[in-house]
Amino acid sequence: MTIELYLIRHGIAADREDYPNDEDRPLTSKGRKKTTKVAKQLRDRGLHFDHILTSPLVRARETAAILQDVGLGEQLDEFPSLAPNGDINTWVSWLQEWRQNRNRESCLALVGHQPDLGNWAELLVWGEAGEKLVLKKAGVIGLNLKETGVPLGQSELFLLTSPKWLI
Amino acid sequence: MTIELYLIRHGIAADREDYPNDEDRPLTSKGRKKTTKVAKQLRDRGLHFDHILTSPLVRARETAAILQDVGLGEQLDEFPSLAPNGDINTWVSWLQEWRQNRNRESCLALVGHQPDLGNWAELLVWGEAGEKLVLKKAGVIGLNLKETGVPLGQSELFLLTSPKWLI
Repeated sequence: MTIELYLIRHGIAADREDYPNDEDRPLTSKGRKKTTKVAKQLRDRGLHFDHILTSPLVRARETAAILQDVGLGEQLDEFPSLAPNGDINTWVSWLQEWRQNRNRESCLALVGHQPDLGNWAELLVWGEAGEKLVLKKAGVIGLNLKETGVPLGQSELFLLTSPKWLI
Repeated sequence: MTIELYLIRHGIAADREDYPNDEDRPLTSKGRKKTTKVAKQLRDRGLHFDHILTSPLVRARETAAILQDVGLGEQLDEFPSLAPNGDINTWVSWLQEWRQNRNRESCLALVGHQPDLGNWAELLVWGEAGEKLVLKKAGVIGLNLKETGVPLGQSELFLLTSPKWLI
């Protein structure tokens, strides 16, 4: 069964100096507005996620909640290894199990951080990461995963965009 | 001087069986409409090309003319090696000379065909091509080229999109 995988970067967040703990930084008002516009554009183009996984950091959780609020997907869970410097193998293992319990084309969204998301996309498509993808805040990457087998080095890239081109 | 390079695939063209010579196939009515919508969206987001080069095939020339007609760029030339199976080194040599005569950030568009455009993007970013990029008709790739030196394996990808996400 084929999987469309979307990697979505959190929106614009509050300054680091205002939050002693980086994990607590929320989206700014501008960040919320821009992220909501991106989410609505994705929804209006027919996208629907069977599952949304998010980094546990506040700015990512708030971004994921916006995706859910506009109707892009009902099922939303935090996933610790989507935090900065998380291990791709942890969520790829989760994905391999998840896909076995589904019986049609499936669509999964991961909400997280740079440079991880860009590196993960490069690993999925080319098998190695060189920080060659520019992924702005609230930007989106879309990948086609092969029907079976480990997706690393075997996937296709069909979308890479910043909010600028979507909204 | 930095260069933004856009690789744009021709729009939907007439069926092969209706044209004994593949090079003569024009855009269909639907192809013209969709390509015009894409071009207007690019223009409305502030894009302007300092130069547009196109494959000499009819479907590419018609696509390039649409870009020019909506005001995306005034200077338009045919470039033989943008035809199918063209050699990347020919137009990269042209580009290296072109950039030397410019004194600010420049923006170049190439209108051509698949799988060449996707392969060229992969060569520019990763140094090798594996047909891992999905580029639909009237789809767009955006690349940042380094300020100096040969761009192969040294460029960044910031945009890959089909008309679906733009219009």
